[in-house]
Amino acid sequence: MKTKRKQVFVEDLKGGDIVDEMFMIADRIDRNTLILSDRSGRIKLVIPDEEGSDLIENLNVGEVILIKDGVVVGDPEEKYILLGEQSNIKKLDKSQVSVEDFVPSLAKEDIKKMMTEIRNYIGSVKNRYIRKLLEKIFEDRELITRFSNVPSSLNHHHNYLGGNLEHSLNVARICDALSRINDKLDRDLMIAGALLHDIGKALEYQPSHIIDKTDEGILSGHIVLGYKIIKEKIEELRSEGVDFPEDLEMKLLHMVLSHHGKHEWGSPQIPRFVEALALHYADYVDAHLKYHLQKVEEERKSGKTKWGFIWDNDMKKRKRFMLEG
Amino acid sequence: MKTKRKQVFVEDLKGGDIVDEMFMIADRIDRNTLILSDRSGRIKLVIPDEEGSDLIENLNVGEVILIKDGVVVGDPEEKYILLGEQSNIKKLDKSQVSVEDFVPSLAKEDIKKMMTEIRNYIGSVKNRYIRKLLEKIFEDRELITRFSNVPSSLNHHHNYLGGNLEHSLNVARICDALSRINDKLDRDLMIAGALLHDIGKALEYQPSHIIDKTDEGILSGHIVLGYKIIKEKIEELRSEGVDFPEDLEMKLLHMVLSHHGKHEWGSPQIPRFVEALALHYADYVDAHLKYHLQKVEEERKSGKTKWGFIWDNDMKKRKRFMLEG
Amino acid sequence: MKTKRKQVFVEDLKGGDIVDEMFMIADRIDRNTLILSDRSGRIKLVIPDEEGSDLIENLNVGEVILIKDGVVVGDPEEKYILLGEQSNIKKLDKSQVSVEDFVPSLAKEDIKKMMTEIRNYIGSVKNRYIRKLLEKIFEDRELITRFSNVPSSLNHHHNYLGGNLEHSLNVARICDALSRINDKLDRDLMIAGALLHDIGKALEYQPSHIIDKTDEGILSGHIVLGYKIIKEKIEELRSEGVDFPEDLEMKLLHMVLSHHGKHEWGSPQIPRFVEALALHYADYVDAHLKYHLQKVEEERKSGKTKWGFIWDNDMKKRKRFMLEG
Amino acid sequence: MKTKRKQVFVEDLKGGDIVDEMFMIADRIDRNTLILSDRSGRIKLVIPDEEGSDLIENLNVGEVILIKDGVVVGDPEEKYILLGEQSNIKKLDKSQVSVEDFVPSLAKEDIKKMMTEIRNYIGSVKNRYIRKLLEKIFEDRELITRFSNVPSSLNHHHNYLGGNLEHSLNVARICDALSRINDKLDRDLMIAGALLHDIGKALEYQPSHIIDKTDEGILSGHIVLGYKIIKEKIEELRSEGVDFPEDLEMKLLHMVLSHHGKHEWGSPQIPRFVEALALHYADYVDAHLKYHLQKVEEERKSGKTKWGFIWDNDMKKRKRFMLEG
Amino acid sequence: MKTKRKQVFVEDLKGGDIVDEMFMIADRIDRNTLILSDRSGRIKLVIPDEEGSDLIENLNVGEVILIKDGVVVGDPEEKYILLGEQSNIKKLDKSQVSVEDFVPSLAKEDIKKMMTEIRNYIGSVKNRYIRKLLEKIFEDRELITRFSNVPSSLNHHHNYLGGNLEHSLNVARICDALSRINDKLDRDLMIAGALLHDIGKALEYQPSHIIDKTDEGILSGHIVLGYKIIKEKIEELRSEGVDFPEDLEMKLLHMVLSHHGKHEWGSPQIPRFVEALALHYADYVDAHLKYHLQKVEEERKSGKTKWGFIWDNDMKKRKRFMLEG
Amino acid sequence: MKTKRKQVFVEDLKGGDIVDEMFMIADRIDRNTLILSDRSGRIKLVIPDEEGSDLIENLNVGEVILIKDGVVVGDPEEKYILLGEQSNIKKLDKSQVSVEDFVPSLAKEDIKKMMTEIRNYIGSVKNRYIRKLLEKIFEDRELITRFSNVPSSLNHHHNYLGGNLEHSLNVARICDALSRINDKLDRDLMIAGALLHDIGKALEYQPSHIIDKTDEGILSGHIVLGYKIIKEKIEELRSEGVDFPEDLEMKLLHMVLSHHGKHEWGSPQIPRFVEALALHYADYVDAHLKYHLQKVEEERKSGKTKWGFIWDNDMKKRKRFMLEG
Repeated sequence: MKTKRKQVFVEDLKGGDIVDEMFMIADRIDRNTLILSDRSGRIKLVIPDEEGSDLIENLNVGEVILIKDGVVVGDPEEKYILLGEQSNIKKLDKSQVSVEDFVPSLAKEDIKKMMTEIRNYIGSVKNRYIRKLLEKIFEDRELITRFSNVPSSLNHHHNYLGGNLEHSLNVARICDALSRINDKLDRDLMIAGALLHDIGKALEYQPSHIIDKTDEGILSGHIVLGYKIIKEKIEELRSEGVDFPEDLEMKLLHMVLSHHGKHEWGSPQIPRFVEALALHYADYVDAHLKYHLQKVEEERKSGKTKWGFIWDNDMKKRKRFMLEG
Repeated sequence: MKTKRKQVFVEDLKGGDIVDEMFMIADRIDRNTLILSDRSGRIKLVIPDEEGSDLIENLNVGEVILIKDGVVVGDPEEKYILLGEQSNIKKLDKSQVSVEDFVPSLAKEDIKKMMTEIRNYIGSVKNRYIRKLLEKIFEDRELITRFSNVPSSLNHHHNYLGGNLEHSLNVARICDALSRINDKLDRDLMIAGALLHDIGKALEYQPSHIIDKTDEGILSGHIVLGYKIIKEKIEELRSEGVDFPEDLEMKLLHMVLSHHGKHEWGSPQIPRFVEALALHYADYVDAHLKYHLQKVEEERKSGKTKWGFIWDNDMKKRKRFMLEG
Repeated sequence: MKTKRKQVFVEDLKGGDIVDEMFMIADRIDRNTLILSDRSGRIKLVIPDEEGSDLIENLNVGEVILIKDGVVVGDPEEKYILLGEQSNIKKLDKSQVSVEDFVPSLAKEDIKKMMTEIRNYIGSVKNRYIRKLLEKIFEDRELITRFSNVPSSLNHHHNYLGGNLEHSLNVARICDALSRINDKLDRDLMIAGALLHDIGKALEYQPSHIIDKTDEGILSGHIVLGYKIIKEKIEELRSEGVDFPEDLEMKLLHMVLSHHGKHEWGSPQIPRFVEALALHYADYVDAHLKYHLQKVEEERKSGKTKWGFIWDNDMKKRKRFMLEG
Repeated sequence: MKTKRKQVFVEDLKGGDIVDEMFMIADRIDRNTLILSDRSGRIKLVIPDEEGSDLIENLNVGEVILIKDGVVVGDPEEKYILLGEQSNIKKLDKSQVSVEDFVPSLAKEDIKKMMTEIRNYIGSVKNRYIRKLLEKIFEDRELITRFSNVPSSLNHHHNYLGGNLEHSLNVARICDALSRINDKLDRDLMIAGALLHDIGKALEYQPSHIIDKTDEGILSGHIVLGYKIIKEKIEELRSEGVDFPEDLEMKLLHMVLSHHGKHEWGSPQIPRFVEALALHYADYVDAHLKYHLQKVEEERKSGKTKWGFIWDNDMKKRKRFMLEG
Repeated sequence: MKTKRKQVFVEDLKGGDIVDEMFMIADRIDRNTLILSDRSGRIKLVIPDEEGSDLIENLNVGEVILIKDGVVVGDPEEKYILLGEQSNIKKLDKSQVSVEDFVPSLAKEDIKKMMTEIRNYIGSVKNRYIRKLLEKIFEDRELITRFSNVPSSLNHHHNYLGGNLEHSLNVARICDALSRINDKLDRDLMIAGALLHDIGKALEYQPSHIIDKTDEGILSGHIVLGYKIIKEKIEELRSEGVDFPEDLEMKLLHMVLSHHGKHEWGSPQIPRFVEALALHYADYVDAHLKYHLQKVEEERKSGKTKWGFIWDNDMKKRKRFMLEG
Repeated sequence: MKTKRKQVFVEDLKGGDIVDEMFMIADRIDRNTLILSDRSGRIKLVIPDEEGSDLIENLNVGEVILIKDGVVVGDPEEKYILLGEQSNIKKLDKSQVSVEDFVPSLAKEDIKKMMTEIRNYIGSVKNRYIRKLLEKIFEDRELITRFSNVPSSLNHHHNYLGGNLEHSLNVARICDALSRINDKLDRDLMIAGALLHDIGKALEYQPSHIIDKTDEGILSGHIVLGYKIIKEKIEELRSEGVDFPEDLEMKLLHMVLSHHGKHEWGSPQIPRFVEALALHYADYVDAHLKYHLQKVEEERKSGKTKWGFIWDNDMKKRKRFMLEG
């Protein structure tokens, strides 16, 4: 059966438009309000009193619905879709639709290319224990499918499907460069740290193509989940006869546990050897540069030219930022 | 063979004294300087140039030595033991000495009494999964022996052997009281959280009766080590046929991961349900009250009467604190 | 004369409803806008241009009005009541209405039960000076009526009439428990500190059944007002021949002055003896637990099920918080 | 009986000197160590083992002693006086000595001149209630004698007898200037706030010519003690028939309660009207300028020429500061 | 040609009004929205879909437009002007209008009076190098015209044309007073520092009578731009034969570079001599007092009487502030 | 004339040694104490009372002296050289000695190699204005000699002669790598920013081979001095007919002004375009990695093996750090 593709996207909607289109349910606000989304953005759906609760009751976050005869209300503050008496909502089976219409995500070929580059990095690792561990992990198809199809964050940077993969690869590139510039850094540790530091995000985020966290993700966090995954994989290796050194295990686990760098940034450990420190910096630099590049892009799209405003989390206020160049 | 007992303790030493006594090695500063300790305190040992390195080379932290003919130098700033030409150092086997002479520690009977109270708390838990898990963990003799013979911190509070046990029990008492005062709190979760929140300290601290951390303790920390222990024990239960609920597992693990309350206090998670929050408060209150009570005691011992000075970690300075009453 | 009771509450209003109901005036925004409230919540009242200023001129915060023929406008962002040409506002005398319809408040019987428990705590105090002081203060009917009919805060925790009493009692329960668990704590000081630490709120909040502060409350604050009240009561005792000890006076006053624990939390003093410190912790724990329990309740009421969002004042952002269990 | 005057001061002592001189006891460290002081500085007194405790037992902080045959030990780190077998300590009656030899203090004539300027400021106040209150307070000889003979701080700024008076006057001068520059500021409130903001220091510091705090000073602090004094004086005025306005009372008390400006600086209130804010700034500016001027002077005395180092409390480290000019 | 004057100002507009009036363009939000302003405030202009982009394309910030037949929409949250099909926008030449109608600004005579007072301060400087430098700078008509026609900040304090001049003069008055009260302060340095500390704002803000920054202002900031201006002027003096001392140059430049006082307030230098410190305080006090006085005025205008709310930047929240008195 | 070379270095001195050796004067503490240094470390020189002041009077920081018959005192806390009656101090002319004996510094060949790599980077710049500016600056021999012979900091990282050059080059390497990894970054801007960001240190540090700051360095700082140098060089280019674009000038100056990244780190500007941000990160990463690598080296030298302690400036305390690997 052929999948249906979206024709009209959220960013195209204007006040007065009649809506006959598919959307994903991104959030449930209350009995009369849902947040809908597609890959271009989000829009509120308002269902007038009384009718709301029944219609909404069996709609869940992550499901795709087809709206008939909704109206876009052109409130200058914020557009929303209003359901009238004639309007209609129908739940669709996900097999009928194309996920990439609904969630911002990297193209399949890009993901493939990145995986190839990652495999090259793994192949370049000289320490055989580290290389075996990386191979073990990247051969686990279910794990790696999740790893390469989750975002890197909910709304900070790389917040699209595949973002986690892209970020992990970029950190590996920076770590590679830093270990070439500074010969005191052990390149094998750096590459392993880069490829594994966010492996826990495979379990932290929903596998369901909606950008949200799992319960385990909220309660344990990707850092501890990464610790868990690596520990399990090392145990597997050992059960297969590999004498994985305990010191190396402690160092790799520490790199995952300390990659956020500071306690106040949610790091259970601060980095306690130079490679752990360098990994933290590589992670920090890639995340923050990407955040600014994404925001510059968004400001430009909204029609601004020379100067935009970007939220600065350190200063807790928006800062002027140059969009040109 | 009868064990030898110490006659003279660090706190008794005066300038000019000749030292013929046993000490534990608490730290190695450099080629000419060791820190010695016994249960009453610490004192520096200075070995004059040249001779230092050889003598010290095969002495390790945690070993007990017998010093012959050392001299106490009565520097007004800080006393230290000086080794002269006639002086002598001899390494002793630990089986010949009494550990309690060298490390501040709770009395054996106190530890026993506390273990009984803990078992009563376990017995009072109604949720059978939680009770089974607690029993499983507290039946692991090797683990619990370490758990009840480590300190709670290096130098903040409960910093003596058995301190971890005393603190864990006190947190259970406070959790018990809070869940009686506030009926919205699930007492079973509170008791389990209290008894398990610092279980990871069993692996974080040296089992060797010297108050210091293990490599794994430094690199992973007691919070993540606690997570690891509990996860393993739940897997064991499951392998024995117990259908331990996943939700409950996540909640218990979260309580351990969040018990430091704030990221800046080294907590990988902030508490995300009320029992986790209440456990954090119980832990915080017991640790801080004990810290102040210990410091008041120390100030009194040093001869002060009405007012002493206690370091306040929030204000990053010493504060006047009343010693009376 | 029989008092009129409200039939329809703010939380029931829906877009399009015609309003014939009583509300209390909670705030005056500008010449055309009032904030109305009843015990279920708040709603804006908009009076179209021109007519606004005259109608509003002699309406004051805390007064009760009857609105005839207002219309609820169902703005998806925020509902409000709009006054049309036919609409009408009439000021009511407070004797005609039931205060509990307008302000969230504890039930009379609950307040009574709590007062009994407080009197039991007073009776259990062994130090005769402390007991006399507590009796003196809790016999002052005017003071205690205000004390037990004010909220504990404007919008943080226990923000309903009677909240101050409930919180003070809960702090006493925790102090009682802490002094049983830790025998170094003087229980009499702890109980007195608990019952008196927020006595100044009797003067900080309006006695008029509207949840707001008095001028003195804004300019001096409940901590200093508590100091003033206790100082006066001790002077009264002395004028009646009681030789109230100066040291004890200083300690009790200090407990009030330091119960916020840290300067940055508005505490003119930091706690300088263990009971003052323990009182601060008891206050802190009860306030923060209650805040979370209230917010969990509010999130559930708004229709959320597993996860809600609660503002975290430390992190200055909303955190996910579990609503189940 | 003629008082004895000091011949040799702490700042003159050199290694090897034999000491036959009077000192005040500034602090008791432990059984073998006292801190001695005179107006030029402080020096440690070390009494060798055994003999220490007896000799020291009945010596208290604030008392003056005569040392015979002590020896100055010229430790490069820090000089101290060592008591030998021949040495001797004799307690002196304070009537035999000159207080100004022992505590840094302003000259009597300077204090007189300042009191005259203060009286002129009081005379210039136009609001008769404020003027009466100021007269009432400055006529209380006991209070004002203490007020003008205490320091402004233990070791931050104006830390000499009379410092509180000098600082209060300077704040009045700045407040006077600010209210002339900015006509929105009520000059009467500003002058009263300036003269009264530190009145509580009269009770916070020891009257005994030793620079230390009283118990009440430690437990209540000068801000709350100032509130107490002013409140009592207004009550006195009322009992004498003056109808002191309540609003004015609240404003004056608020100025005292808020003059530290921020909660984290120990202020129970933040300033809530412009004169309270301006008073805080005047206090802040005078205290900080004086601190730097005093430290510049000290650095110069120690022999530095162009650049010195001054502790910066904001940055929590020493900063280079220019001594010239 | 006679200039047209505005008849109706933003603050007068009411829902339903038909707008035929001139406004300045204060900001461009997106293709359908502009922010208009006049000296009384700001209002949004909404141009319905499709037509927006064309109309707006060649309208730039700072230009004046005449709107025909716009309608004021009386949204209770926020009024805005809606352009209908009949509506019309026409760009006006600035020579046809009166700038003071569009931007809040000081009166011409006030600016004149202030300049006279500034010249008196310059005349009172005794050091001939400092006086020459001040004369050189204040004779540069183009520079000083900009200096005295820019605001002191975008929206904090003195945010109107001429605000920079008023603030600079006020700082000079405070510096003058401080140097009279404290004779350790070099008055010439203080006066020069006051008059020059914000000279860089002449280049930081737009000369075009719109309150916004220049690109150089955003990228270099007024502190560094002030450094640049003074450096150039000293070089000019030297090229004219004046032997301006290097030490004095360094001190004056340092006063400009350090006048924000702390790094976190954007100061590249912290003050390193007492006059630099005193200048920082004078700047701080005037800016903060003015901020509060302006906000009090705004709260009163909005109809509040006794208490208003003012944003407190230190506490990152609104504080109650008294409007009376 | 042949230069004399040092035979014995500070790190070799032991208690009891007789000293006949040359040292540089690193600091003057007081009338009896100097700090001496050579490339291996620092040691105190104590000159007994009386004689001190005369001897020291005409010795200045940065001068080299020859000590005859000093004695090393082996205080366990800290060694120092004591001058006796026979001892002697003689000032040497710098032409007689080898600077590299006294100050830690890079080898001449290393500096040469680095300069070659820098010239290659300059040659690779494509934008002709940027390349010309870099050539102009790096052709100024006096400037570049200072630039490549100063340290990068007093005691944080790269604190040896040549450290500034090494750090600047390393930042260029990282910037080069980042611009290859991320094609949105303009490589020319990145290379220029890297090579120029610390050009101001040429004027901030003493040219005299003693590691200290100049007066201008203390009062203006290297950031503003870098701004000054680049501005002058661009003016020179313009005076030679190069039409250097104003926009490019502003961007390059901004990169220098913002490279410390945050106001609290002394940055007058925060980065306002992506290349400025990336430059800040490159600077930050190299400085912090080097700091840790240097400290690891120092800890190892002091004889520690697995774990050392390194001061962590964020946490304001020492952290355990692994020395192996």
